[in-house]
Amino acid sequence: MLKAPDHQVAGHEAGLGKLGPLIDDSGRFYKPLQGDNRGSEEVAFYESFSSNTHIPEHIRKYFPMYYGTKIMKASTGVEHPHMVLQDLTSARVNPSVMDIKIGSRTWAPDASEAYIAKCLKKDRESTSIPLGFRLSGLQVYIDDESRFYKPDRNYIRKTGPDDVRLLLRKFVSSNPSADMEIGTGSGPGPDCSLASSVYGGPNGILAQLLELKAWFEDQTIYHFYACSFLFVYEKRLGLKGAWSNAEVKLIDFAHVTDANGVIDHNFLGGLCSLTKFISDILSEIEDCTGTNGQVEL
Amino acid sequence: MLKAPDHQVAGHEAGLGKLGPLIDDSGRFYKPLQGDNRGSEEVAFYESFSSNTHIPEHIRKYFPMYYGTKIMKASTGVEHPHMVLQDLTSARVNPSVMDIKIGSRTWAPDASEAYIAKCLKKDRESTSIPLGFRLSGLQVYIDDESRFYKPDRNYIRKTGPDDVRLLLRKFVSSNPSADMEIGTGSGPGPDCSLASSVYGGPNGILAQLLELKAWFEDQTIYHFYACSFLFVYEKRLGLKGAWSNAEVKLIDFAHVTDANGVIDHNFLGGLCSLTKFISDILSEIEDCTGTNGQVEL
Repeated sequence: MLKAPDHQVAGHEAGLGKLGPLIDDSGRFYKPLQGDNRGSEEVAFYESFSSNTHIPEHIRKYFPMYYGTKIMKASTGVEHPHMVLQDLTSARVNPSVMDIKIGSRTWAPDASEAYIAKCLKKDRESTSIPLGFRLSGLQVYIDDESRFYKPDRNYIRKTGPDDVRLLLRKFVSSNPSADMEIGTGSGPGPDCSLASSVYGGPNGILAQLLELKAWFEDQTIYHFYACSFLFVYEKRLGLKGAWSNAEVKLIDFAHVTDANGVIDHNFLGGLCSLTKFISDILSEIEDCTGTNGQVEL
Repeated sequence: MLKAPDHQVAGHEAGLGKLGPLIDDSGRFYKPLQGDNRGSEEVAFYESFSSNTHIPEHIRKYFPMYYGTKIMKASTGVEHPHMVLQDLTSARVNPSVMDIKIGSRTWAPDASEAYIAKCLKKDRESTSIPLGFRLSGLQVYIDDESRFYKPDRNYIRKTGPDDVRLLLRKFVSSNPSADMEIGTGSGPGPDCSLASSVYGGPNGILAQLLELKAWFEDQTIYHFYACSFLFVYEKRLGLKGAWSNAEVKLIDFAHVTDANGVIDHNFLGGLCSLTKFISDILSEIEDCTGTNGQVEL
């Protein structure tokens, strides 16, 4: 019954002799505990978060459900401990998915010198330092024939600020393969035809990000280093003009630390930057078409 | 007519053979251009900012007035170019002053490797990394006899998160020399008697920080690295329960860069963190005394 997830866009992948996540057909996602403490740190976070009574209910929905840990046959064929989580794409037929790592700094202050040096290098080489976030992967559903636009990991690893701007547009376009030089405006660019239903509206991604922002301006419980947003929506629903079923989730908690009474200014900065990118797309749409997909800021 | 400023709490000080700022009796502050491009970078910022028509008027008031540059006899006795700025404490008799450097990162992405390494070390050793800001200096007026509480620079350099929390309270206390172990609540701590009039209220420091925050959530003109807030107030006015005349100004623009269409997530994160520290102080006051110095958040 277990298999590798169909819609994984980033992170370790299950394969021949390779440890990666598995899913079953009941909507559960089995994430193998990573070595060097990361697995146990992530379990510790989920246990703490599940039992923390200071997390408001309207915030809890942005986190995957957690069902404990289980020792089971891993993708490598041998027994290994796994976290049992909610499969965030199980209810979707052809989900468009984007994974965005938040924060200009992906290392916690108490990390080792070697780990800090490694992260700082990646943060500087990616858009984490200039933008406060970086893309880790995405897939955009096109149609039943072409299936998905899914740029390869080597391309994703090298994306600069202009690429990120373009990919945030492609994510909500019916022609995500269309390329356009940013700035020149030449050529048929991504049409952003789903922007107002996916990013905009009272239940869209921007509204969800703003709800999280309000919490991050106040919460002094956790600092989330190297944590990602997962954006998921179903094109079929978006195109009908109906509720796009766009969802924002937070994932990857191997580097969460105690906040010690201080807000997570590193995460909040990245969240505000991403929010601005998305509201800029909605403003442009509005300027062009007169439609109003944007929520009140 | 020129002399060293009376109320400087951080930065280079004019002295025998030492280059430092000077003031005159007409309310002007003469800042010598620093070497290694920093001086010319700061002049470039002031020139750009003065002529930029996209800066809203209600934001312009948070920046010192700029009157150009002037070659004049420096504190060292020899001719040197200076920026001519507004003296931010000239209208004050006994100003309480605090200088807070904003941002967990004080280096711009395009800085040299050597400069980045130097800044990163300071950011990690200070509270910049954990809190998103660090204290650079302060003086708190006590009375005409005791004059000022002004911790020395060696102490300021070593302040940790708990010290910062304490000093933010001392800054608005009539007994700033009183010490208290944070957390134990033992001993007579700083009384925070001026908190509601200096930090709180419709014209207080918190309200000003929130006005700046709204701009920083949107502005994609400049990134302000290693820039400071200067908080200034006059105790005489605060104690009478009148308008405290508390002012927030931004200073030190030697490391401002073009924003390239991205918000200054590094500055914004630090600003939000500082805002939370100050609103926490106001909440505690309110809990204790029932007075309401806090503005609507």
